[in-house]
Amino acid sequence: MYPKSFASDNHAGVHPDIMEAIAAANHGDAPAYGGDRWTSDFEDKIKEVFGPGAEGFAVFNGAGANMVGLALMLGRFDAIICPDSAHIATHEAGAAERLLGVKLMTVPTEQGKLSPADIRSRLGGIGNPHVSQPTVVSISQATELGTCYSPEEIADLAEAAHAAGLRLHVDGARLANAAAYFDCELRTITTDVGVDVFSFGGTKNGALAAEAVVVLDPSLTDAVPFLRRQSLQLASKMRFVSAQLSALLTNDLWRRNAAHANRMAMRLADGIADVPGVSLAQPVQSNAVFAALPPAITEALRRRYLFHPWDEAATVVRWMTAFDTTPEHVDDFLDDIRKAAASA
Amino acid sequence: MYPKSFASDNHAGVHPDIMEAIAAANHGDAPAYGGDRWTSDFEDKIKEVFGPGAEGFAVFNGAGANMVGLALMLGRFDAIICPDSAHIATHEAGAAERLLGVKLMTVPTEQGKLSPADIRSRLGGIGNPHVSQPTVVSISQATELGTCYSPEEIADLAEAAHAAGLRLHVDGARLANAAAYFDCELRTITTDVGVDVFSFGGTKNGALAAEAVVVLDPSLTDAVPFLRRQSLQLASKMRFVSAQLSALLTNDLWRRNAAHANRMAMRLADGIADVPGVSLAQPVQSNAVFAALPPAITEALRRRYLFHPWDEAATVVRWMTAFDTTPEHVDDFLDDIRKAAASA
Amino acid sequence: MYPKSFASDNHAGVHPDIMEAIAAANHGDAPAYGGDRWTSDFEDKIKEVFGPGAEGFAVFNGAGANMVGLALMLGRFDAIICPDSAHIATHEAGAAERLLGVKLMTVPTEQGKLSPADIRSRLGGIGNPHVSQPTVVSISQATELGTCYSPEEIADLAEAAHAAGLRLHVDGARLANAAAYFDCELRTITTDVGVDVFSFGGTKNGALAAEAVVVLDPSLTDAVPFLRRQSLQLASKMRFVSAQLSALLTNDLWRRNAAHANRMAMRLADGIADVPGVSLAQPVQSNAVFAALPPAITEALRRRYLFHPWDEAATVVRWMTAFDTTPEHVDDFLDDIRKAAASA
Amino acid sequence: MYPKSFASDNHAGVHPDIMEAIAAANHGDAPAYGGDRWTSDFEDKIKEVFGPGAEGFAVFNGAGANMVGLALMLGRFDAIICPDSAHIATHEAGAAERLLGVKLMTVPTEQGKLSPADIRSRLGGIGNPHVSQPTVVSISQATELGTCYSPEEIADLAEAAHAAGLRLHVDGARLANAAAYFDCELRTITTDVGVDVFSFGGTKNGALAAEAVVVLDPSLTDAVPFLRRQSLQLASKMRFVSAQLSALLTNDLWRRNAAHANRMAMRLADGIADVPGVSLAQPVQSNAVFAALPPAITEALRRRYLFHPWDEAATVVRWMTAFDTTPEHVDDFLDDIRKAAASA
Repeated sequence: MYPKSFASDNHAGVHPDIMEAIAAANHGDAPAYGGDRWTSDFEDKIKEVFGPGAEGFAVFNGAGANMVGLALMLGRFDAIICPDSAHIATHEAGAAERLLGVKLMTVPTEQGKLSPADIRSRLGGIGNPHVSQPTVVSISQATELGTCYSPEEIADLAEAAHAAGLRLHVDGARLANAAAYFDCELRTITTDVGVDVFSFGGTKNGALAAEAVVVLDPSLTDAVPFLRRQSLQLASKMRFVSAQLSALLTNDLWRRNAAHANRMAMRLADGIADVPGVSLAQPVQSNAVFAALPPAITEALRRRYLFHPWDEAATVVRWMTAFDTTPEHVDDFLDDIRKAAASA
Repeated sequence: MYPKSFASDNHAGVHPDIMEAIAAANHGDAPAYGGDRWTSDFEDKIKEVFGPGAEGFAVFNGAGANMVGLALMLGRFDAIICPDSAHIATHEAGAAERLLGVKLMTVPTEQGKLSPADIRSRLGGIGNPHVSQPTVVSISQATELGTCYSPEEIADLAEAAHAAGLRLHVDGARLANAAAYFDCELRTITTDVGVDVFSFGGTKNGALAAEAVVVLDPSLTDAVPFLRRQSLQLASKMRFVSAQLSALLTNDLWRRNAAHANRMAMRLADGIADVPGVSLAQPVQSNAVFAALPPAITEALRRRYLFHPWDEAATVVRWMTAFDTTPEHVDDFLDDIRKAAASA
Repeated sequence: MYPKSFASDNHAGVHPDIMEAIAAANHGDAPAYGGDRWTSDFEDKIKEVFGPGAEGFAVFNGAGANMVGLALMLGRFDAIICPDSAHIATHEAGAAERLLGVKLMTVPTEQGKLSPADIRSRLGGIGNPHVSQPTVVSISQATELGTCYSPEEIADLAEAAHAAGLRLHVDGARLANAAAYFDCELRTITTDVGVDVFSFGGTKNGALAAEAVVVLDPSLTDAVPFLRRQSLQLASKMRFVSAQLSALLTNDLWRRNAAHANRMAMRLADGIADVPGVSLAQPVQSNAVFAALPPAITEALRRRYLFHPWDEAATVVRWMTAFDTTPEHVDDFLDDIRKAAASA
Repeated sequence: MYPKSFASDNHAGVHPDIMEAIAAANHGDAPAYGGDRWTSDFEDKIKEVFGPGAEGFAVFNGAGANMVGLALMLGRFDAIICPDSAHIATHEAGAAERLLGVKLMTVPTEQGKLSPADIRSRLGGIGNPHVSQPTVVSISQATELGTCYSPEEIADLAEAAHAAGLRLHVDGARLANAAAYFDCELRTITTDVGVDVFSFGGTKNGALAAEAVVVLDPSLTDAVPFLRRQSLQLASKMRFVSAQLSALLTNDLWRRNAAHANRMAMRLADGIADVPGVSLAQPVQSNAVFAALPPAITEALRRRYLFHPWDEAATVVRWMTAFDTTPEHVDDFLDDIRKAAASA
């Protein structure tokens, strides 16, 4: 038996409150495809949390939420400006190109974060019929490198995007971790700073399989049901997906889970500070620790622990924590890191 | 509060055994994306049930299972021959055209069932570069009209398809209901009669959200993981999807649920036999009752019951039963049908 | 050496005036991609002929003109209502499904012509997220069966389409033949009767390879250059395509060519009136003669002449005439038809 | 009136021999879609020039040739490895993403040329279902920067590609210029060095609108007619396209035209060698001169001459020559360059 996995927040199970919410929804009949009261509750909670203009749509998974959300904003000859580390660019099996049919204008970034200058640098081909037309900027919050955009940074990106007639999309698979990092409300990094469409991730934060597409631009809302259905993301027994999201949005479960995971990452980061040969490769701002360490240590650790190398050339690894990672899990892992470092 | 819904087997909840299986899978960490033991169990059960050459892949929903399964067999200028009532043609929001990029060669049918002659009648354009090339035949089992193909009928379709170089796909959203109707094994209407790829539906038969793509042609297997990922059908916490399917395949839960639903449909069909003005529009062979009845009766019933009109011109309605429909539900409904008929 | 082909107006060569226009355009440098004076001339001529609100865009071929024109009006989950004989449905190798990603809602028709009632009968799924949403009606003028829509018929279709929020597209590969049949202006069957986007065919009417997409709805114009480029329909040395279209639009060459071809078809139709066993299968309203005749006659004729069977079951064949078909060609063919009939 | 354009080889007209070939093909009827003798001749000439295993297919334009050729080799979740300057990546309006549905794995390059190491560096994700799978390497010959791959360099790329199970595609819009540069046969840089599929460009080398897709891997041939039709690249009066290509392949017209254009580029490059402030930005190996020069000189020249800036930051411009550029054109331009440099 492996010890606690540091490979992914997807290795964790389901939070008990969410499992209970699923069981509670299993009560008699309910109209299919969202015509049920659990889905109404979820839709109301989205408005409570993100403001009265926000419309939430439940889907199965993160890639699904990204594709539905992006499809809303993209025409036939369009492009998305995004960091080259973007999940949609690197780990969704080409869904953006195949399902959306658009070009990803990827930008090399520091710490996975796009800047307003990056946006402006990619606008040269606007109006040129030989060139894909950028219409959407997409960022991940938290980023794929575990860093977070501050509310001001997002506002600046939204301003740069809107000034050029582009919309701003946020892949919020770990939106909760970012809000927990800034100790702010979820709307502070979305509704309040000019985001047009975003996903709100549940699965990595304790759900079984539940994500939301949230639309803040009312001109885009009508198309969602059609795109969600066509994109294979419409649950027939939707009450069970909606119930998960509602549970996360009740009594700030989203924040408790994310803040805990963040704290565990920070505990791990703090713990390696004095381990010789081991250093942080990225600032720790969510539930990811990117560490640089010699191959011998990595090798020794991977005999016992599940985690992913990130950049083999640079000998960087990624360690993820989750809502169910305990201080003991982290401390045991730290012990093993120290031992591996000592004998390397 | 509505009484028991006769609108869809999707209005039912989750069978207790399946809910228990989900809860049991929520135990510590598990590798994401299918590297877990619940998924191994599911894969083994697929081989037990469908034969050692069968490979099963869990997905979220029926449209997803169809699109992944069909994509395996379709090139860039291909067509699918299918009944004009096929779910992929009528109720999947154009996913076949958009995600697969292929033409649906729809055939008008009796009782929703395609014949070998129907296949042969659509092969005239083979080799003509101006014409989409048929490479797959797709049927639904049970059909969208509640009828079932016998093992012999499927074998004949497979032979007609294969003779022309086409493959046979089965949309098995209600495959269990068909096997229950013939009181045969699931493999008797799939593996043993020449099917190449099919879906095995769980959701309508008591699962929360779980379907399987089953591949019987080994040359097609390698592509599934990529297509499933790209088609937004890869669950990160897959153990919870696999556990549902395994529960259905354990101790013949699939058959018990489906046979029960079928019996309730037959009870309803038998009950209307003597109701004046009401008649069956299709033979009842699964958990669907298609009835022809005067608009006044339909109208009266819809004030109290959830169900869908099927063909408004012909005043046909569809009544679905589910694993949790009880004899009392049916009898109460029959009482109301008789009352409505009496006062119509 | 075969005698004059009756297989297709595409078997004809290039009209001398058009060949001369191509040669005349071969004079020194010209900016690529349409920035040349021949293209300006063409754009002006489109406005002269179709009205000041018409914008013309030159492309290579008819399927290209259809795909670019239709793409302008179609979103991600849309459908096109069209006759089941539509060229886009039957002979463009699935381009509509693959390049546009939309469903073709094909309607069985009399004489290849759609009616307002046909449109209205296909609107039932509007608003239902499980169903492709019809947003465009597409007709062919002349139809694939050689018949023509009168100005009134088109006005009625446009009204029915617009009333439901759909746009009207005309595949005008043989628009000239229809205008010649009614002896009206080209705008009488397009601009003046509510068409939104249409193609104007040149190739079948004496050009080498030249068709135009004409946009009458100004809200759609801006997207054309991008869609034309992406759809592989942007000629780099565009002056040579534009010059062909301008030649057709100069001194009514389009009408002279089309009217001549129509007359030759009528001569052929008149000629077979008294041939025993041979009859017209469709009214002759353009340059196509659809004739029903016994297989023995067809077989005898095909030993000497190129033409296509249309519907083998009904023993119908299609005979096309072109701008360069002469009365002698027709009379020789008629002689051979009479001989074949006599010995059959 | 502008003087000779240095903006693009597409600004040139049609070579007299090719115009004559078009006129000569305009003789009576010919079967449509390639069933004519001019197309047979073209197909034979392709075999003469590229070897008996080569199959040629005529299309309208370069982007069309690329999309048809690439589509042959690409499945649903595939990727193309190519230089980031590749025409398919930068100037085809996103056709690769939209029509092929694949990811472009673009590689930053020196002088526009990919290396075997570049290929190997992009293979890390093979087998990972989250990642687009590279199956094709695509290079341009000559490159977008006017440089050429030697036969040895192409052989090395083919070996690296094939060793990893990928195929090698060449965008040969200027293949003739490359063969002229090396003074070798066309097959020396294609058939003889492991290329699988390539395009052979005619338009930039004196044709009106004609390119060929050439397939050297016989397992790919059967699909071309379907893909060409669906991709809107099938000319109905194909004899006029085939005749252009045949003319280019007759008496080495392709080489005479390309070698002349190359010489004019070299004359221009030699001429600027002693102009202060002006320098070559790329080696001159075809008909393109990339020059670095101060903005003031560029500005002065653009008042009188058509040409494109390439990289505004680096103040690099692109000057193209064509089959019809004369020494006088070049010398006049050089005079003006010298004058502009003197007064800058």
